[in-house]
Amino acid sequence: MKNIILLGATGSIGTQTIEVLRGLSDEYRLVSLAFGKNLNKAIEIINEFKPFYVCSELKEHAEILKNLYPSLKVGYGNDGLLECATFEARNNYPTVVVNALVGSLGLKPTVEAIRKGYTIALANKETLVTAGRIVKEEVAKHGVELIPIDSEHSAIFQCLNGENNRNLKRIILTASGGSFRDKTRAELENVTVEEALKHPNWSMGSKITIDSATMMNKGFEVIEAHFLFNVGYEQITTILHRESIIHSMVEFQDTAILAQLGTPDMKVPISYALTYPERQLVSNAKQLDLTEIGILHFEKVDFARFPCLKYAYDAGIIGHSLPTVLNAANEAAVNLFLDGKIKFLDIEKIIYENLEKHELIKNPDLETIIQLDKELKLRIIKSAERSAL
Amino acid sequence: MKNIILLGATGSIGTQTIEVLRGLSDEYRLVSLAFGKNLNKAIEIINEFKPFYVCSELKEHAEILKNLYPSLKVGYGNDGLLECATFEARNNYPTVVVNALVGSLGLKPTVEAIRKGYTIALANKETLVTAGRIVKEEVAKHGVELIPIDSEHSAIFQCLNGENNRNLKRIILTASGGSFRDKTRAELENVTVEEALKHPNWSMGSKITIDSATMMNKGFEVIEAHFLFNVGYEQITTILHRESIIHSMVEFQDTAILAQLGTPDMKVPISYALTYPERQLVSNAKQLDLTEIGILHFEKVDFARFPCLKYAYDAGIIGHSLPTVLNAANEAAVNLFLDGKIKFLDIEKIIYENLEKHELIKNPDLETIIQLDKELKLRIIKSAERSAL
Repeated sequence: MKNIILLGATGSIGTQTIEVLRGLSDEYRLVSLAFGKNLNKAIEIINEFKPFYVCSELKEHAEILKNLYPSLKVGYGNDGLLECATFEARNNYPTVVVNALVGSLGLKPTVEAIRKGYTIALANKETLVTAGRIVKEEVAKHGVELIPIDSEHSAIFQCLNGENNRNLKRIILTASGGSFRDKTRAELENVTVEEALKHPNWSMGSKITIDSATMMNKGFEVIEAHFLFNVGYEQITTILHRESIIHSMVEFQDTAILAQLGTPDMKVPISYALTYPERQLVSNAKQLDLTEIGILHFEKVDFARFPCLKYAYDAGIIGHSLPTVLNAANEAAVNLFLDGKIKFLDIEKIIYENLEKHELIKNPDLETIIQLDKELKLRIIKSAERSAL
Repeated sequence: MKNIILLGATGSIGTQTIEVLRGLSDEYRLVSLAFGKNLNKAIEIINEFKPFYVCSELKEHAEILKNLYPSLKVGYGNDGLLECATFEARNNYPTVVVNALVGSLGLKPTVEAIRKGYTIALANKETLVTAGRIVKEEVAKHGVELIPIDSEHSAIFQCLNGENNRNLKRIILTASGGSFRDKTRAELENVTVEEALKHPNWSMGSKITIDSATMMNKGFEVIEAHFLFNVGYEQITTILHRESIIHSMVEFQDTAILAQLGTPDMKVPISYALTYPERQLVSNAKQLDLTEIGILHFEKVDFARFPCLKYAYDAGIIGHSLPTVLNAANEAAVNLFLDGKIKFLDIEKIIYENLEKHELIKNPDLETIIQLDKELKLRIIKSAERSAL
C-alpha cells in the first residue's frame, strides 16, 4: 500500500497521473491533492478518488469545496500547498508526493515533503534547477528517495538501476529539438505562440513546450541530471534524436551504453515513479514496435543554434545563485511570450541579459532563492511593460 | 581477486579474452587454459600469463609443453579439457571459467565446472542449445552464476540487472542479418565459403560467421535466451538491425524497453563477464558516438527468407532431444560447407531433414545427448561422403 499526494492534479502531468492511478490497484491511494484554477476537473477527481485533503489556488474555490464536501479538509494558496504536500494519512503506509506543479512554486512544498520523509516523484523541473544543492542536501539528510518523472531522467534512473554509480562515465540526454528544430535562426524572428506550441512528439503543458522549442528544457535537464545523479557537467552530453524513442542513455567506463526506449507517453515514467522498484501494467500505453518506426536519427546539438542550452551549462557550472536567475528569467520571459508581449527570440535575450548583470550570491539559502526568484520575475515583467508603453 | 580458467584460449573469443586480461589489473589471474592446435600462440600465452595448468587438443603438443615447462601441469584431449575446466588453484579466490570452445565439445567441461561451483562465463552457444535443460538444473543445484558472453545475451543480462524478472515481458534479440542479408533466396544458390565468411559488422570465428549468414546463430540465441532468462519462446522476438549497435533489448510490462548499445566489440561483453557485477576499463574499446553513425535501422525478420531461425524456434518449443539434433545437424553441415563439400543452401536442407526424421527422446540425460550428438554428426558426414562419390 502507498499513499499518493498529487500537487498539480489538473495540469498535464497531473491528469496523466490520475489516469495511471485509475489503472493501478487499490494499493495506491490518492490521499491529498492540490490544483490550480480548474474547479470542475478537481471536483471530478474528488468524486472519483475521495481524497482526505484538497488545496485550491483560489480562496473562493476552497469555500465552494467546503460547502460541497463538509468532511473534506480544504486549504488554498501557498499555505494550503504546504499542508497538502505534508498531509499525513492515518495509516503507516509509505507516502509518495508527485510534484507536478509548474514553475518555482514547486520548490517549498518539495522541501517540506522531504523533511516529512516522503518519497518525492519529481516532475517539477524548476525545483532542482533553482535550488538543486539545497534539495540534494535535504534528501541526503532525511534519507528519502527522489525519483524523477520526466522521460529523460526516468530513463537514466532506470538505466542506473542495479549499477554501481562509480562505473558511470557519461549521461547522454536525447533532445527532440522541439517545435522549431527545422527552422534557421533567421526563421525564428517572427514565429507565433501557436506555432511554438506544436511539439512534434510530446503533448505537454505550454510552459514546457516553449522551453522545448528554445532548448532551455534540455538545459534544465542538464542541471537536474547533475544533481540527481551526482555527475559533473563535463560528464553530461546532449544529442538530437528527432523521434524521441530513446528517452536517454548512460555510458559506463567499459564503453557499454544502456538506453531506455518507448513510445512517447508520460504515463510510463509516472507509473514507474509510483510503483518503483516494481513495474505495473500501464493502461493504454502503446507497445513500441521499432520495425514500424524503421529508422532512428541522431545528430549533434549546435550551441549556436540553441544558445539557451549553452546558458544552462554556463549557469550550472558557475552555480550558486546563477541557476536561480536562469530559471526565473526564463519563466518570466516564457510567460511574456505566451501572453503575446514579446517575440520568441526575446526569450533568450532576456535570459542572457539577466545572467550577465547578476551579482552572484554564494551558497544562497532557501529564503534567499525564493526572494531572488520573485524579485527577478517582477523586474522582468515590469521592464517588459515599460518597453511596451 | 579472481582465478580465470580459459577454455579455447587461442580462438577468436579466447584471443580477445587474453587481450581483456592484459588490460585488467593483477586481480584477475589466468590459472588454467585449454587450446586447440595453435601451439605457438599457446606458448606465447603461457610465457606471458604463467598459468598452472594447460591442456592441448593433441597429445604431441602436450609432450612438447611438458619438455618446455617442467613445472607446468599439462593435459590433452577430452580428459585434459575436464581437468582444465575444474582446475583448483591453491587459494580461496572465486573462479570464473570462460568457455570459449566451439561446438558441442563445450558441454561436458561446462557441467563439470558448474559442479565444482565455478562461475561460468559462457561464449559457447552449443552448451545451452544442446543441453539447456540439464545445464540449467545443474546451475540451480550448485547455485552458481551463469554469465553469457555473446553480445546479445550480455546485453539482455545487463538490461535485467536490478530488475525483477517477473516484470519482464519480452526479449528482443537484434540480428545483423549476416553476410548475405541483402541477397535473395535465389542468389544464395551459388555463394562461396569466402563470401559467407565476410560478416558486415563482427569479426568472429568461421563457424559462427556461417551460422550468422544462415541466421541459425540467432536461432541458437533464441533457445539460449529461453534457458538463460527463464522466458517462454512466445516472449522472445528477433528484429533485423543492420548496424549491430543495439546489441539486444528487454521490454517490461509497463512497455518500457531497456537496450544495451556499443560499437561491435566482443571485448566489452567478455570484460563484463569477468568483472561482473563491476565494470572495468576495456583497453582499446571504442566509445560509441551515435551522432557519427547518424541512423539506426530496424526491420522485420522474414522466416521464409531465414528458415533456420524458424527451425530453431520449432526445435526449442518441442524441446527434449530436438535441440540436440538441431545443433548437431547444423554443426556437421556447416563443417561440410566450410570444407567445400556441400553448397550453402544444403546446410538448411540437412538440418530440416534431420529434424523431420528424428524420433524424439524424452528428457535425455547428458550421456544420451552426447551420444546422439556424436552419432548424428557421423551419420551426416558419411551420408555427404556417399553422395559425393
